[in-house]
Amino acid sequence: MSAESILIVGSMAFDDLQFPRPTPDPAKPTKLGTSFRDVIGGSATYAAMTAAALAPVRAIAVVGDDFPESVLEQMRARGVDTDGVQRAEGKTFRWSGRYHPDLVGRDTLDTQLNVFADFRPDLPQSYRQTPLVLLGNIHPALQIQVLDAMDSPRFVMADTMNFWIEGERDTLDRLLGRLDALVINDEEARLLSGEHNIAAAAKQLLKSGLDHLVIKRGEHGALYFGKEGIFACPALPLADVADPTGAGDCFAGGLMGYLATQAHIDDGAMRRGIVHGTAAASFCVQAVGTGGVRQLDEPSLSSRVAEVYALCRIEPEALAERCAS
Amino acid sequence: MSAESILIVGSMAFDDLQFPRPTPDPAKPTKLGTSFRDVIGGSATYAAMTAAALAPVRAIAVVGDDFPESVLEQMRARGVDTDGVQRAEGKTFRWSGRYHPDLVGRDTLDTQLNVFADFRPDLPQSYRQTPLVLLGNIHPALQIQVLDAMDSPRFVMADTMNFWIEGERDTLDRLLGRLDALVINDEEARLLSGEHNIAAAAKQLLKSGLDHLVIKRGEHGALYFGKEGIFACPALPLADVADPTGAGDCFAGGLMGYLATQAHIDDGAMRRGIVHGTAAASFCVQAVGTGGVRQLDEPSLSSRVAEVYALCRIEPEALAERCAS
Repeated sequence: MSAESILIVGSMAFDDLQFPRPTPDPAKPTKLGTSFRDVIGGSATYAAMTAAALAPVRAIAVVGDDFPESVLEQMRARGVDTDGVQRAEGKTFRWSGRYHPDLVGRDTLDTQLNVFADFRPDLPQSYRQTPLVLLGNIHPALQIQVLDAMDSPRFVMADTMNFWIEGERDTLDRLLGRLDALVINDEEARLLSGEHNIAAAAKQLLKSGLDHLVIKRGEHGALYFGKEGIFACPALPLADVADPTGAGDCFAGGLMGYLATQAHIDDGAMRRGIVHGTAAASFCVQAVGTGGVRQLDEPSLSSRVAEVYALCRIEPEALAERCAS
Repeated sequence: MSAESILIVGSMAFDDLQFPRPTPDPAKPTKLGTSFRDVIGGSATYAAMTAAALAPVRAIAVVGDDFPESVLEQMRARGVDTDGVQRAEGKTFRWSGRYHPDLVGRDTLDTQLNVFADFRPDLPQSYRQTPLVLLGNIHPALQIQVLDAMDSPRFVMADTMNFWIEGERDTLDRLLGRLDALVINDEEARLLSGEHNIAAAAKQLLKSGLDHLVIKRGEHGALYFGKEGIFACPALPLADVADPTGAGDCFAGGLMGYLATQAHIDDGAMRRGIVHGTAAASFCVQAVGTGGVRQLDEPSLSSRVAEVYALCRIEPEALAERCAS
């Protein structure tokens, strides 16, 4: 399967993660379980490692002088071009979070921007004609700056977050007009649209000229709104969830990776891509940090994709398989 | 489509409901919106009205002398046998609740058992050979009592709640061994299994001898665990949610109504039935109280069932329709 290149911009980070011991009743207090420090993370890291299972990736990010070169080497070994990863003096971006007992909710304990505070994406000349672009969650002015530096990519997808929706609305609106697809979570969709109801929110957001809207709902999967209707992709019910950090980024990475293999990015390609993103995210949550995706390959992903297909089947296997070809 | 009869036992009630005005950010306080008093409700009411769109229903419940006879008349006009609905001296069961701004969470403000406190299901002779049984959420000892009074029904499904899981565990365990299917929500599945993780919880619950486990997740749909794998049925993303009260009961009613039309209740029948339950629940939430389901008919339901099928399709319409026949 030949694939085009994907440019991915976002954060590379150290994460400090605390996990409580899960209990049957999330309302009941639990003592803390394990903690992990200096876990390799960041939206660009997760998305790039995942997309690399399906397509060549070009990464744009910044790391401090404390970030291990070996991680960048591992990424390069998997087909990630790291020419766009700047190494700046100072410390790498660091996020500290504590998960709730349900392993879904989480509290941010600390955010240290460090070298990310002065991040100005700088596109290597070799990146400018990349056909697909994934704008990870960074300041929308920087997302626009990346787009401005490129030669008409054929497909642009972006993520964003509440902080920019509330604080940089005008800039974000300018970005929205230049996207093919937006991938956000349900809370962000509500804030961005001003509509509480998720169907009403989607209808409102599609008015901004987007062709494709993907609303992530964590353990409940994703909703896709396109020109040919709505698709609800369920998440795999996994018995061994270890760490949800980065699952949304791996979802976006898996989706973009699949789209890079498609000659035409239409409604069907998006739906199949969302299934690939869902499968990729399921690997992500099964290990702490990038442990679930940093060695992800196409055969493993395809096998999990088949499980998501099965999960969506109203008719059991026998009938469904006749229709799968 | 010919259908067998369904016996449905549960509550008939007055509900007092308070709804806040929804806002894009559920965390932000809102002033209360509308309130409704004396709304006709109860698990048996919702489930029976819904199942009646597809199959003859026999209801077992108790009402007080304040419950309008006109409601029972409406139900009879739709093919619900109300010979098993006792009218007792005193007031009808009453539940008062206030919904959160997200229209999902809710607080119980008051529960008045009234005539329901002394409810002892009494099966009319004509009910004893009913082939399908839906045991709504009442004391598990009463659910067992109903089963004991019946002549070997071919399919028995039950609902329960946290109160019985925590307080009547032994009785509930005896009931579980006699069920074909259990339909509960995710929180109940966690409590009942002692497993936080929903996939682990399902695996544990299926050990009790159930053939079919349905885990309701409200606006996120339902998960089905059966012998031929897992099916994730999404809920329709509706732009006009008015009142979620009774949605779970309408889901169970729609599911049972569909099963009553099936000669063999296998994995496929359960999956298609869950789609019917999902469609039925979507009508329920679009109006306050039973307004969305009390006139529900088979053509309306079928049209909404087609929408749920579309929502599950990874391939858009054109390809999927070739496989639908």
